[in-house]
Amino acid sequence: MAQTTPNHTQTVSGWAANDSSGKITPYVFKRRENGADDVTIEILYCGMCHTDIHHVKNDWGITMYPVVPGHEITGIITKVGSNVRKFKTGDKVGVGCLAATCLQCEFCKDSQENYCDEVQFTYNGIFWDGSITYGGYSKMLVADQRYVVRVPDSLPMDAAAPLLCAGITVYCPMKDHNLLEPDSAARKIGVVGLGGLGHVAVKFAKAFGHHVTVISTSPSKEKEAKVRLGADDFLLSTDAKLMQTRKRTLDFIVDTVSAKHSIGPLLELLKVKGTLVIVGAPEKPMELPSFPLIFGKRVVKGGIIGSIKETQEMMEVCGKRNIVCDIEVVQTEQINEALERLAKNDVKYRFVIDIAGK
Amino acid sequence: MAQTTPNHTQTVSGWAANDSSGKITPYVFKRRENGADDVTIEILYCGMCHTDIHHVKNDWGITMYPVVPGHEITGIITKVGSNVRKFKTGDKVGVGCLAATCLQCEFCKDSQENYCDEVQFTYNGIFWDGSITYGGYSKMLVADQRYVVRVPDSLPMDAAAPLLCAGITVYCPMKDHNLLEPDSAARKIGVVGLGGLGHVAVKFAKAFGHHVTVISTSPSKEKEAKVRLGADDFLLSTDAKLMQTRKRTLDFIVDTVSAKHSIGPLLELLKVKGTLVIVGAPEKPMELPSFPLIFGKRVVKGGIIGSIKETQEMMEVCGKRNIVCDIEVVQTEQINEALERLAKNDVKYRFVIDIAGK
Repeated sequence: MAQTTPNHTQTVSGWAANDSSGKITPYVFKRRENGADDVTIEILYCGMCHTDIHHVKNDWGITMYPVVPGHEITGIITKVGSNVRKFKTGDKVGVGCLAATCLQCEFCKDSQENYCDEVQFTYNGIFWDGSITYGGYSKMLVADQRYVVRVPDSLPMDAAAPLLCAGITVYCPMKDHNLLEPDSAARKIGVVGLGGLGHVAVKFAKAFGHHVTVISTSPSKEKEAKVRLGADDFLLSTDAKLMQTRKRTLDFIVDTVSAKHSIGPLLELLKVKGTLVIVGAPEKPMELPSFPLIFGKRVVKGGIIGSIKETQEMMEVCGKRNIVCDIEVVQTEQINEALERLAKNDVKYRFVIDIAGK
Repeated sequence: MAQTTPNHTQTVSGWAANDSSGKITPYVFKRRENGADDVTIEILYCGMCHTDIHHVKNDWGITMYPVVPGHEITGIITKVGSNVRKFKTGDKVGVGCLAATCLQCEFCKDSQENYCDEVQFTYNGIFWDGSITYGGYSKMLVADQRYVVRVPDSLPMDAAAPLLCAGITVYCPMKDHNLLEPDSAARKIGVVGLGGLGHVAVKFAKAFGHHVTVISTSPSKEKEAKVRLGADDFLLSTDAKLMQTRKRTLDFIVDTVSAKHSIGPLLELLKVKGTLVIVGAPEKPMELPSFPLIFGKRVVKGGIIGSIKETQEMMEVCGKRNIVCDIEVVQTEQINEALERLAKNDVKYRFVIDIAGK
C-alpha cells in the first residue's frame, strides 16, 4: 500500500483510515526527501481534532483514502534544508493545518495565508509536487519551513500540540476583537461548547481578565466550567427561561460547536452590535433567524485557524502565560477507541497521541 | 369599532385588517389629542411595505387586531404642540417605523433609538399612554416630534414615502460601511432581490459610483436591473455555474430578500472578510452553512431601519441627489388588490397609497 511519488523515498510508519468505516490501522507510506526549504520532524505528539473524525468517515465527501489524519503536531527537527535559517536540528517545533499555499496572492503576501484560495492542508491536501498530504498520525513529517512554528521551551510538547489547531482557532477571533492585548478592557465573553476549542477559549479569556460565560447543552459541564476553568457564569442553552435572563448582556461570543444548531438564542445573548464568531464546522447549515440579527444589529463572523505568524505569536503568549490544553494522552494502539470517545465528546478536553511512545 | 382611550378624542378615517384573512376595510378610530411634543400630520401618501402583509396576516403571531398598517408616511403638518420648535404648520414631513422609544437607554441617548429595547412601532405598537398604535393607512396621524423628519422640497411626496422604511433600511448598512460618502472609494457591491428595498439600494450604490451586481431568482429582472437602474452585472442566483464564476469578487452585499433562503451561495460571492448585510425578515430561519463563512472570514450582519438622525440625513442626501423610489400610486379602494400583487412581488417597485386622494 506504500504510495510511490517521484522523490518520495522516505519510508514512514503511520496510521490511516482506508474507507468510510473510519477504522484506523497501521500504514506504511513514503514521504518526500527533505528539500531545500523543508525541515524533517520526528513527531512526538499529535492531537486528535473533530476534523479527523469528519475526514476518516468522509462526512464532507472529500476524503482521499487512505487518509493519515492529524494536524496538531509537535516534534523535534532532525534535518533542515539548505535554505532553512529559522530552524536547526533539535529545535522543538509544531505544525498545524497548513501544508502549502500559493505564496503569491494578497493573503499569502500579507501573512494571512490561511485565507489563500489555494490553501492545502496537512492531510488530505495536494502538495505542490502533486502528492497527497499525510498528517501527524505518523512517526515523521517533512514540512516546508514556512508552515512550521517554534514551541517555547516552557510548554510541554504533549499539551502544546492541540494549540496548533484548537488553540489558534479560538485565539485569532479573540485577538481580532482586541480581547487579547495586555491592556484589553474587560469584556463579557461567551464560550459556546466546552470541548477542545471551548476550554482553551475560556483559558485565553480568563488569562486576559474577561468575564466568561460558558454556554452548553450539558448540565455536567457547569462544575467543570466554574471550578476547573474559572468561568464566571454558566448557561444551559436548553433552559430558555435562564437564557432569557441574560438577554443583551454579552459583548462577544465564540461558538465552537460542530453539531448543527440554531444560533438565534445565542444572538439574543449579545448586546446590540455584539459579535458571534463561528469556528465550528457543522456538516449541515446552521439555522439563522433574522429577527435577533436585525433587531440587535448583531454580527456573525467566521474564521478558520490562523496564519503562521499568528500561530507563532499565540505560542509565545501561551509560553508566557502557561496556557496549554487539558489533555488525555493515548497510545497509538488506542487511536480507534479515542476516536470513538471523541465522537461522543467523552474527553477532557483533547486526546493527544503519544506518537513516539517514549 | 372606534377605539376609546382617555384623551383619544380625535376621530380618524383609516383602513384596517380585522383578522388574519388580511382583508383591509375602512375603519374609523380615535387618535390622541395633539400633546405638547406632538405634531398632527395630514397624511398625503403611505407606502406599502412587505411588513404590512406580515402584520395583516399575522405571519409573526404578534398582530393586535384591528391593525391599521403603514409606516412609510408623508404629509403636511397641521398642528404643533407647545414644545415643538423644529416644525411648523405647513411643513412637509415624513414618519417611518418609530413611534416611541424609552428615551433613556444608551441607544436613545446616542441617536440610535432604533435599537432601543423598548422600541414601539408606528403600527401594532404600544404607545407611552398604553394605546395601540395605528399606522399610515389613515387620513391623519399624531406623532411625537422626536420621530418625525423633514422632507426636502425637491422630493415628490409620493415617491419619497417609501424612503422612510425601504430607503433607510438599505441606506444605513451602506453608510455604516463607508460606501455613501462623497469620497467613498468605488467598491463592488451586490444587491440581492430587486424589490422595494433592492432597487433603492442599487440607486444609492450607483449614485456613489460603485460597481453594482444585482442577484435575483427572476431572469426577467436582468433587463430592469441593467437598463432601467444602471446595474453593472446581473446574476441569476439559481445558476450555480454562473455564481461560481463570480466567487470572491464582491466587497459587500445587501440581502433584501424576505423569503427563506440559503445565504451560503451569497457568501461565496464575497471576497475574504467581505460583509453580507441581512435586512429582510424571513419568517423562518435562513440556512447558514459554516464553510463559506469560516473559509472566507466573512461577516453576516443585521440591521433594522435607521435612527431618526440617520433618516433625516438620508432625506437630505436623497434631496440633493434626486434619489426616490420607483412607485405605482394606488387609490384607497385598491389597497387589497395592491397587497395581493405585493405578495406576488408584482410591483415596480413600491405601491404608494394616495391617502388624501387629491
